[in-house]
Amino acid sequence: MCESNVYLIDENGRESLFFESVDRLIPQEDGLLLENIFGQKKLIKAKIKELALVRHKIILEK
Amino acid sequence: MCESNVYLIDENGRESLFFESVDRLIPQEDGLLLENIFGQKKLIKAKIKELALVRHKIILEK
Repeated sequence: MCESNVYLIDENGRESLFFESVDRLIPQEDGLLLENIFGQKKLIKAKIKELALVRHKIILEK
Repeated sequence: MCESNVYLIDENGRESLFFESVDRLIPQEDGLLLENIFGQKKLIKAKIKELALVRHKIILEK
């Protein structure tokens, strides 16, 4: 399956894992709605810095 | 591999294929930079409407 892990990058460039196995990402007015393959959802006030899908990686920044 | 196809949705909700086999997406000041698994790049003035990674689908809107 082609879900990705979502990482949050801080101002020092350090990445921390925020949410695993994300299938869907839907931008909202107040952030990004993430849904993983298990149907769990998280809303985060952040923006996309980069998608690297072959590496199963989504990087967000606040 | 987990690249996605990128579709552009118009005001009537119709999707058209814009770019195949996209690996990386990097938001820029003036749009989105897309790079496919063959190293080809496209810049488009659009925003992300939805990612649906398990379906290998990225939907953009102008």
